[in-house]
Amino acid sequence: MHKVVIIGAGFGGLAAARALSGQEVEVTLVDQRNFHTFLPLLYEVATAGLDPGDVAYPVRAVIGRTPNIGFRLGTVTGIVWQERVVCFNDTKSGHDRLAAGCEDDVPYDSLILASGAIANFFGIPGAAEYALPLYTLQDARHLRDHLLLRLEEADGELAHASDGTLNFVVVGGGPTGVEVSGAIAELLDMPMERDGFRFDRSMARVVLIDGLDHLLGPFKPSAQRYAEETLSARSVELAMGKMVARITPAEVELNDGTVIATRTVIWAGGVTVSGTVATALGTPTAHNGRLLVDSTLAVSGCPGVFAIGDCAAIPVSTGSELTCPQLAQVAIQSGRHAAAQIVAGLTGRPRAPFSYRDRGIMATVGRRAAIAQLRNGLVLRGTVGWVAWFSLHLVYLVGFRNKMTVFVNWWWRYLNWTSGPRVIFSSESDVEVESGAPTRE
Amino acid sequence: MHKVVIIGAGFGGLAAARALSGQEVEVTLVDQRNFHTFLPLLYEVATAGLDPGDVAYPVRAVIGRTPNIGFRLGTVTGIVWQERVVCFNDTKSGHDRLAAGCEDDVPYDSLILASGAIANFFGIPGAAEYALPLYTLQDARHLRDHLLLRLEEADGELAHASDGTLNFVVVGGGPTGVEVSGAIAELLDMPMERDGFRFDRSMARVVLIDGLDHLLGPFKPSAQRYAEETLSARSVELAMGKMVARITPAEVELNDGTVIATRTVIWAGGVTVSGTVATALGTPTAHNGRLLVDSTLAVSGCPGVFAIGDCAAIPVSTGSELTCPQLAQVAIQSGRHAAAQIVAGLTGRPRAPFSYRDRGIMATVGRRAAIAQLRNGLVLRGTVGWVAWFSLHLVYLVGFRNKMTVFVNWWWRYLNWTSGPRVIFSSESDVEVESGAPTRE
Repeated sequence: MHKVVIIGAGFGGLAAARALSGQEVEVTLVDQRNFHTFLPLLYEVATAGLDPGDVAYPVRAVIGRTPNIGFRLGTVTGIVWQERVVCFNDTKSGHDRLAAGCEDDVPYDSLILASGAIANFFGIPGAAEYALPLYTLQDARHLRDHLLLRLEEADGELAHASDGTLNFVVVGGGPTGVEVSGAIAELLDMPMERDGFRFDRSMARVVLIDGLDHLLGPFKPSAQRYAEETLSARSVELAMGKMVARITPAEVELNDGTVIATRTVIWAGGVTVSGTVATALGTPTAHNGRLLVDSTLAVSGCPGVFAIGDCAAIPVSTGSELTCPQLAQVAIQSGRHAAAQIVAGLTGRPRAPFSYRDRGIMATVGRRAAIAQLRNGLVLRGTVGWVAWFSLHLVYLVGFRNKMTVFVNWWWRYLNWTSGPRVIFSSESDVEVESGAPTRE
Repeated sequence: MHKVVIIGAGFGGLAAARALSGQEVEVTLVDQRNFHTFLPLLYEVATAGLDPGDVAYPVRAVIGRTPNIGFRLGTVTGIVWQERVVCFNDTKSGHDRLAAGCEDDVPYDSLILASGAIANFFGIPGAAEYALPLYTLQDARHLRDHLLLRLEEADGELAHASDGTLNFVVVGGGPTGVEVSGAIAELLDMPMERDGFRFDRSMARVVLIDGLDHLLGPFKPSAQRYAEETLSARSVELAMGKMVARITPAEVELNDGTVIATRTVIWAGGVTVSGTVATALGTPTAHNGRLLVDSTLAVSGCPGVFAIGDCAAIPVSTGSELTCPQLAQVAIQSGRHAAAQIVAGLTGRPRAPFSYRDRGIMATVGRRAAIAQLRNGLVLRGTVGWVAWFSLHLVYLVGFRNKMTVFVNWWWRYLNWTSGPRVIFSSESDVEVESGAPTRE
């Protein structure tokens, strides 16, 4: 039977797998995590609004009862497209085999690359070392622990406020940057009332930096203004038209010479594709490292290989110079399209070109404040926009259980806020939480 | 004002803090985690029935609005009872200060030790190195990842079943051992139906080992028989009257010479008190390292120091040779009592002796199967016992939000089971999930 390998269980990979369910193909979905991550809500995990489990859904729970789809947990280490083989490291044989450098080769007839994107630090000094990205669940958990530990440090020691412990700098004015800065401002408001922290809220700063003159580039000016006014009213400082020049463990320096003392620089400044994907195929890549694909989503020069979602530079429509934005909707639609092309090839039908159907864009700015820009240009904002944002995310959140708990969480938080999951699970090296009894080694 | 320091935010420490709320004392509650762990449900986290966040509740959310109680996150490194000072390492000054070995001294007038217990491996060779304890949330998360990774390894490779990948050995036939072996048996049933794993369920073994002739020592014989029959019916093998002689990464050896190939030995075989507590005070300790206390819960020979809960050897009543079991109820009752003694001392009233009020004991054996032995000797079992168990745990689970999500989780699982949180969050060294994009570095 025709073998399909799908690399990545994000929105694109899962959509492709689902579209191949019951077809005359044998599908292997591979990912280095055993769960799908609902990326649009990562910022809620990072700011202690949701639990990590609320945005993670086991891949096997999605595909487990589909006979022609299998899952393999492990890391892809290379692709030999000339031989139609994916090189794969997994857990099957434990440490010994891995130590010996042995790998499994997974053969394919068709390959769908859906490996997503990683943070792009643009070579800014110190960014890769000290900035905190927000693209994986691990990132979000780490950021949450980092934020909550800074609050614990500031507790009761007013003198420390001036060393930047309570300064939080967010780089990038896209949806992620807007969402995370709004949520941090709310996180800072809450502890004073609820958690008994003893520090001066007015000494805590949230600064959002972007090189452009306005937040949320793809939105209409009225939506941009709404976001800017709402964030300002919630005491987020906007540093527009500025770039980051340098990041150290203790401060961030902007290109206009401004220096902000901070131990927390959150990176929402752009994404690229991992070097492994681009170099493994050895084909030319587009802007930001994304793989070049033709109008049918086939990777140019690599027979049998498709690329979808964030890792591909997908033309908006045939012949267009514009490429699709890196959104869940693009990943889902392109995943389904690539799957359909594989099925078409098996039945001798010609391939069809991909055309992106814009469903609108949205971003949340905080509680009861979001903007949804619909396809027809209509902009919803404020509470109405928030309800639209809320509803759409619930619809797309994979799995009933997650929907229920997110729903409970959100409404409870909306009504009360007292018992959000402000839990520091992992730890930084200076706090021991790994071992032994509750309070001692 | 009279300064009270409470070490540990478990059942005992929190109960003591709450009892001191609004009294004429200044309370500092310290813990190396910022959350309270609901220990009775740890086994559910370990077997992917609940999310870690469902059994963790932020300490500050409990005490945050109580003006006379403060929280400090950090590690107690010593106690100088002669000077009434607790030595404390926290995060306030970051790495530099810790590297220099500096510590904070926290002075107290009264000290409540509520630091709980740690696993006791009884010096069995290999146990401390290779057995997996289940006493902290970290333990539970690690065990969950470990169990789910073994299933991934076994997937599709039938030959591996004989190397012990699918053999799970549980040491200790108390409530924890019974609960975790029942839950693992259910975890093994489920993936075959739901998750598309390809291995032979009948080759997977769950073995429960105990040195006594019956499970659940403190229960009546009828309850013990019910647990044994139920576990057997759910294909848990009982190895009663046997002891573990040796544990290696690949097998466990019993004292009768039996060798079981396994990579998973779960340790529910007993607890002790951490060396730091016992040696810090320098006073004689009781059976299992527990601190000796008089009938008022005061630590003999250390003025101003009380010990409660799992870390204390508490007489059941004045003059009794029997000590209280290590149960949440004992911790809660003794925490309240110690707080009351401190308040009594301030107002010149005499101290009162502690007397444990037995509220009954319970253990769950799996879905719709639990035993509850009430104070009057009545034993509930089966579905009735399960509902009693379920209700009581919900009542005691701290915080409304956790109750709601646990409730949703349980009923959903009970009705359907499809979407339990079978997510591998952290990783063992042979799977990379820490970095970068969904599928690649």
